[in-house]
Amino acid sequence: MALSPQTELYFIRHGIAAERGTYDHDEDRPLTDKGRARTKTIANQLVKVGCHTDLILSSPLVRAQQTTRILLKAELAATSETIALLAPGGHLADWLPWLAAWQATHPASRLALVGHEPDLSRWAQQLVHGMWGDLWQLKKAGVIGVTVPAAEEAIGRSELFWLTPPRLLL
Amino acid sequence: MALSPQTELYFIRHGIAAERGTYDHDEDRPLTDKGRARTKTIANQLVKVGCHTDLILSSPLVRAQQTTRILLKAELAATSETIALLAPGGHLADWLPWLAAWQATHPASRLALVGHEPDLSRWAQQLVHGMWGDLWQLKKAGVIGVTVPAAEEAIGRSELFWLTPPRLLL
Repeated sequence: MALSPQTELYFIRHGIAAERGTYDHDEDRPLTDKGRARTKTIANQLVKVGCHTDLILSSPLVRAQQTTRILLKAELAATSETIALLAPGGHLADWLPWLAAWQATHPASRLALVGHEPDLSRWAQQLVHGMWGDLWQLKKAGVIGVTVPAAEEAIGRSELFWLTPPRLLL
Repeated sequence: MALSPQTELYFIRHGIAAERGTYDHDEDRPLTDKGRARTKTIANQLVKVGCHTDLILSSPLVRAQQTTRILLKAELAATSETIALLAPGGHLADWLPWLAAWQATHPASRLALVGHEPDLSRWAQQLVHGMWGDLWQLKKAGVIGVTVPAAEEAIGRSELFWLTPPRLLL
């Protein structure tokens, strides 16, 4: 009997970025110096507490890409991939086919997803509860950990094992 | 206009205890040496990351009382109260009148609740989502943090800000 796949997802919100409205295009807003420094500390702390992943999936926006580079440097994963679905407004349901394909070759694995609010906490809530209500608080550079069974039955059947405000990692 | 009360609840599961069946009465099972040592480390770490509470409410069972004493010694709070409703099987709805009375004199406060699974994570899920499905993982000496509005409207309207496996605090 084939084992049911199990994937640990680490939803990581990008660090503190330049204020909204200070750049012509929202997607260009970079991390601030403070955001960069805190994200580095948090990345190192995540690795220190045993958080290693097989791959980082990242939103294409600058602040997420910079966060991903910091996570790679801290060796949270060896490689990253940019996926458009992690940009603001992406839907979980559209990503599940990617997850199913990944699980077919990686039955037990860990993935980091670097992106934006309110999307990340909504994806996580949908996985665990089948719905979302913006009742989970994911601060900048905070982390939500969810264990996901086979992608086809993930919604409403995943398990929350971690939700961490950044202050716990600084 | 009176401000709406807001209470931060920290649900803390007791530390590792003697195996089930090794004592005549389940409520007498104490923490093991390992459980005691890890709970001390976690208690100190909680205080170090800024977790201070106004009061610890504790289940009457030995393993919870011992956990509470360790938390008091680490100065997570100055005082504790034992409440029977935190023993296994207690219902959140039965505790909300206590919370309402507390909030009447403490509009903004932090409470730690030391008890057992699956009750603690069910109470927390009920507060945030109005229902529970055993989809949140609270390990021994783990913590769930929930921000609760006025007790009368707390169920399904509270916010999850923290869920921490003990490995993050060791």
